[in-house]
Amino acid sequence: MKCFIKYGKTCEFPIENLPYGVFSTRNDETRNIGVAIGDQILNLQEIAHLFNGPNLLHHQSVFKQPTLNSFMGLEPSAWKEARETIQKLLLADNPVLQNNAELRTRAFVPQSNAIMHLPATIGDYTDFYSSLHHATNVGIMFRGKDNALMPNWKYLPVGYHGRASSVIVSGTPITRPQGQTLPIEGAEPVFGPCKLMDFELEMAFFVGGAPTKLGEPININDAHNHIFGFSLMNDWSARDIQKWEYIPLGPFTAKNLGTTISPWVVTALALEPFVVDNFPQDPTPFPYLQHNDKFNFDIQLQVDITPKNCNIPTTVSRSNYRYLYWTAKQQLAHHTITGCNVNPGDLIASGTISGDSSDSFGSMLELSWKGTKPLTLSDGTQRKFLQDGDTVTMKAFCETDSYRIGFGNCIGTLLPAKNAM
Amino acid sequence: MKCFIKYGKTCEFPIENLPYGVFSTRNDETRNIGVAIGDQILNLQEIAHLFNGPNLLHHQSVFKQPTLNSFMGLEPSAWKEARETIQKLLLADNPVLQNNAELRTRAFVPQSNAIMHLPATIGDYTDFYSSLHHATNVGIMFRGKDNALMPNWKYLPVGYHGRASSVIVSGTPITRPQGQTLPIEGAEPVFGPCKLMDFELEMAFFVGGAPTKLGEPININDAHNHIFGFSLMNDWSARDIQKWEYIPLGPFTAKNLGTTISPWVVTALALEPFVVDNFPQDPTPFPYLQHNDKFNFDIQLQVDITPKNCNIPTTVSRSNYRYLYWTAKQQLAHHTITGCNVNPGDLIASGTISGDSSDSFGSMLELSWKGTKPLTLSDGTQRKFLQDGDTVTMKAFCETDSYRIGFGNCIGTLLPAKNAM
Repeated sequence: MKCFIKYGKTCEFPIENLPYGVFSTRNDETRNIGVAIGDQILNLQEIAHLFNGPNLLHHQSVFKQPTLNSFMGLEPSAWKEARETIQKLLLADNPVLQNNAELRTRAFVPQSNAIMHLPATIGDYTDFYSSLHHATNVGIMFRGKDNALMPNWKYLPVGYHGRASSVIVSGTPITRPQGQTLPIEGAEPVFGPCKLMDFELEMAFFVGGAPTKLGEPININDAHNHIFGFSLMNDWSARDIQKWEYIPLGPFTAKNLGTTISPWVVTALALEPFVVDNFPQDPTPFPYLQHNDKFNFDIQLQVDITPKNCNIPTTVSRSNYRYLYWTAKQQLAHHTITGCNVNPGDLIASGTISGDSSDSFGSMLELSWKGTKPLTLSDGTQRKFLQDGDTVTMKAFCETDSYRIGFGNCIGTLLPAKNAM
Repeated sequence: MKCFIKYGKTCEFPIENLPYGVFSTRNDETRNIGVAIGDQILNLQEIAHLFNGPNLLHHQSVFKQPTLNSFMGLEPSAWKEARETIQKLLLADNPVLQNNAELRTRAFVPQSNAIMHLPATIGDYTDFYSSLHHATNVGIMFRGKDNALMPNWKYLPVGYHGRASSVIVSGTPITRPQGQTLPIEGAEPVFGPCKLMDFELEMAFFVGGAPTKLGEPININDAHNHIFGFSLMNDWSARDIQKWEYIPLGPFTAKNLGTTISPWVVTALALEPFVVDNFPQDPTPFPYLQHNDKFNFDIQLQVDITPKNCNIPTTVSRSNYRYLYWTAKQQLAHHTITGCNVNPGDLIASGTISGDSSDSFGSMLELSWKGTKPLTLSDGTQRKFLQDGDTVTMKAFCETDSYRIGFGNCIGTLLPAKNAM
């Protein structure tokens, strides 16, 4: 497929990708919905009138909103038609947009000129714990090899409700939090800056389709109709605070200090060519969690750390979305099994994605094996956990021989703790 | 204070209360903000032009919204002015509203004619676990008397993020959920309808004031400026599902099946006359959790169960908000200590409120002591946990010699499980 916008073979945003995001510019604070193409953003507000197919003709206003919620709230047939319409408009042999100089000037914004925002108003944010290797690693560290996996882990996708207000877009700095920790088991807790600050490499999907009703679970065979698309995520974690607070009700202030997502939402449609076998599951899940279609994806993941005053990033992890034990369809079916309702724009994350080799782990906790195996960065400094000034850059992409699709980086810099209160 | 609307001495909604809610009527689906007075609702949309004080003159539009979020988002000085304005307008010797027949007809709606809705769009919902007696009871049942309280419990207000989408207004029925449970320890889990369905007697406050910024904790001495008002809450809980799923990340599908709140939000201002000593705390909390002012309230709580085909409710519990160990100010300071931002309309719940006597426990789990001591209802049937068709009615009120203020009942009926999927 040839596009009239030029880009190279390794560009993250070819015509096969077309991820959605929300942007403003340095000159105009208005938030518009855009699609990344090459090094440009196609402003859908400006071409809303060109969505003339049967599923969108009467819904063009969804492209004139400051968030993607309304568009996400349409049916999958509308998402497909939008993708086909945009693809067609961008084809090298299509004159409609290409040769309309006035419209073209209005419709394209260089990415270098854009300020990205959260793609949607996130009503609720949920975080799962669906990587077998991650759950096993954490279990071994905290409970030993024989009790590594909790008894429920292979029966249901373990997850918990997160904090929606503190989900932020890539580029937003994170402040090292202060909180309570228990440095010495059995002694008194202390208050002060977190000493074990960590990232978690995750992916998350945005819920789409009409809002569901309380008391009406989503059937596993209908779950894909509620999965709009995926972003990359860094679930920043204060390990020492988490360890002290999390029993018995789960992580709380150790997580709500900030959760970063990539600015672009890659649609499930764009990921279809990268579908791979689901992770083998034993025991066989309960029927409400069974689906025969493949809903796992070969998405390569990478985490870089760049220390302050250093220009050279060090890649500390290479992982892959395919390592997830539970599929996004299973996550959604389980999330709603007792009747929980979901809304378009809800965000549902995978949990840390670790592979089976020690260079594919998705957190410093695992990479440094609880601080016992420090990593050496390219500037010669060592890391057990994150240091002030460290910039964490996550990348995700899918590749064929002819093109690559990406998610836009998920970046955050860790700022020093503020003075104690 | 004498009001020109007539009501009796035990009326929940005297001129000293003035709780806020959102209502529509059978004839008009428009959602308006109203204040309960006697058996009437004062429609603030109709009298928005009468808020002429310095803090509200330029914010009259907040009373014309379909939710309370904008009003909650103003400063406490505006909440105070609104209360004083409404109180003045309702005084028996004030002719402005009383003697304007045309306006008076438009401005008052009988409560019997109103359909109540959620007071606010809840961005995030958090549930604490702040009753010492409740945490101790649950601890004894699951871990024995010696390890009843977790080591962190008296150092920090334990809490977790809940599901905002499934918070519903009083009167909405709840469907008995299906899910996974582990009836026999060490055996295989099973899938089916929840067998240990429970209520939890809680109160919750709505966050007010301007949105706070990520990375900027709320100082304990400023926390009251972010506490708009309180509702009564039933945090429905599927005990058997919770027990199997909650390790290690906390309650998830056992809770997101629905959380009911009373339709009226009683302001912190209206509760001031009922302030009592804070619960004694030992050990002394960290400085970020210390405040000298009283922020505990004498709010009497009651739970009734009415079986299907029975008109006679049985009061199964009488408790009190004052039993809470951690204050709402401490909850908010702790919630934000690592930097979590909060927004007006966020809902923050207390956790189950149990007193120290067995008839003051706030859940069936405790009242029936894990099913070992069934309760007998007025129709002669027994209850270990809730049965299909049971209606749970929670009530809350504060009393002086001369008046009583209430929250409106928090009611829900448990419907039978739907057919298995």
